[in-house]
Amino acid sequence: MTTEPPTTAAMLAIGDEILSGRTKDKNIGHLAELLTVAGIDLKEVRIVGDEPAFIADSLNTLRRGYDFVFTSGGIGPTHDDVTADAVAAAFGVEAVEHPEAVALLERYYAGRDLPFTEARRRMTRTPKGASLIANAVSVAPGFRMDNVFVMAGVPRIFQAMMEEVLPLLPAGRAVESLSLDCRFGEGEIGDPLRAIAKTHPGVAIGSYPRFDGERHSTELVLRSRDRAALEAAGAEVAGMLAAMEAARSG
Amino acid sequence: MTTEPPTTAAMLAIGDEILSGRTKDKNIGHLAELLTVAGIDLKEVRIVGDEPAFIADSLNTLRRGYDFVFTSGGIGPTHDDVTADAVAAAFGVEAVEHPEAVALLERYYAGRDLPFTEARRRMTRTPKGASLIANAVSVAPGFRMDNVFVMAGVPRIFQAMMEEVLPLLPAGRAVESLSLDCRFGEGEIGDPLRAIAKTHPGVAIGSYPRFDGERHSTELVLRSRDRAALEAAGAEVAGMLAAMEAARSG
Repeated sequence: MTTEPPTTAAMLAIGDEILSGRTKDKNIGHLAELLTVAGIDLKEVRIVGDEPAFIADSLNTLRRGYDFVFTSGGIGPTHDDVTADAVAAAFGVEAVEHPEAVALLERYYAGRDLPFTEARRRMTRTPKGASLIANAVSVAPGFRMDNVFVMAGVPRIFQAMMEEVLPLLPAGRAVESLSLDCRFGEGEIGDPLRAIAKTHPGVAIGSYPRFDGERHSTELVLRSRDRAALEAAGAEVAGMLAAMEAARSG
Repeated sequence: MTTEPPTTAAMLAIGDEILSGRTKDKNIGHLAELLTVAGIDLKEVRIVGDEPAFIADSLNTLRRGYDFVFTSGGIGPTHDDVTADAVAAAFGVEAVEHPEAVALLERYYAGRDLPFTEARRRMTRTPKGASLIANAVSVAPGFRMDNVFVMAGVPRIFQAMMEEVLPLLPAGRAVESLSLDCRFGEGEIGDPLRAIAKTHPGVAIGSYPRFDGERHSTELVLRSRDRAALEAAGAEVAGMLAAMEAARSG
């Protein structure tokens, strides 16, 4: 088994509308699922508003702390779209019109007989040196700058851009998981489960309570990159639950 | 009009299950809505995993940077519930069994003929000096430590705890908002809208694009604590949209 440390990632979701509660973010959960499948560990997510200096500060912390950073939001044509400038500031470079993006959008608007307005031109701006991320939904691209992938906030477009980005990421060893459902509450399983968790340090055992207003029940999710370790821990937890079931009905 | 700066807040959502994509967070959006109504500005949200040292570091940054911090997750009875210890570490105090919490849970389990297990006792632990936050759903309390409110991750319980917390927060001047829907895309309205935004610095004008696969449309949301300023900006945006409609049909 390789012991290379897993690739790490963070997300920076940008937009006043998430912090005001107007928009319920859907991109965090989507990215989390994709990265889990890809074997990349999402370690931290931050949500910040449309404030360029704060976006830049947050991004600098994240891009230095993790292998990759994924951002959502703030790359449209209006005055509240400040992400390109903020990312440029974070990298200490100018924001410029990206020639490929200009060509793309020029062609797109010409084909629809629409004027290439100043606002629309703004969508071609990237930090100097960025490469584009294609947008299969509505053309205006995202961009990559070093280890930072900058994408749109509209979920359909974020998802389409992630389709472009995924093949660029290193293939990681995916975390495998094993889920066990039980009708015991966490208060009942907590002590024996802690003992098992202690003897299986290579397996993360998550315990997720449910409460239907009357009864507690729990879903246990075991996660590991080491399948043998996962199966050994899973067998122990299953044994523990079977013994508790027997004791309850006995 | 008072010029006192608005109260600020941050949220720290804790749990491996959010970062793995297994659980889609619902507490961030709920808190965001409540704070908006309460006139408190949610400025930043962080999501972190079940790592005590990292939780403590993140919390220390947030509690020093904002008036209030709200946390969700990690206060149950199992080994992966590490929030009480992490918060105690952040404040540099011990985690202890809170006598009121012990009394509450002792009574609760005795009344149901259930043993007060070691695991269940863990739910009485708080940083030394904390006060409790009642849990109207399932008894085990959250707690407050200075400007930090620590609550459960299960949305029903988080919501019940927030009902307890809201009356403790200072009454802020709520942000009022005004929403205008238009059938123009952001690329069309971007330039005139930017001009209006520039002349109304006290009003935040958010522009939220929709794309149904064929047509772009936009919702404009104006927000301000100053109603007169909000109405003046709203009238200008409405006038701009009317003029664009007239031009399109003319």
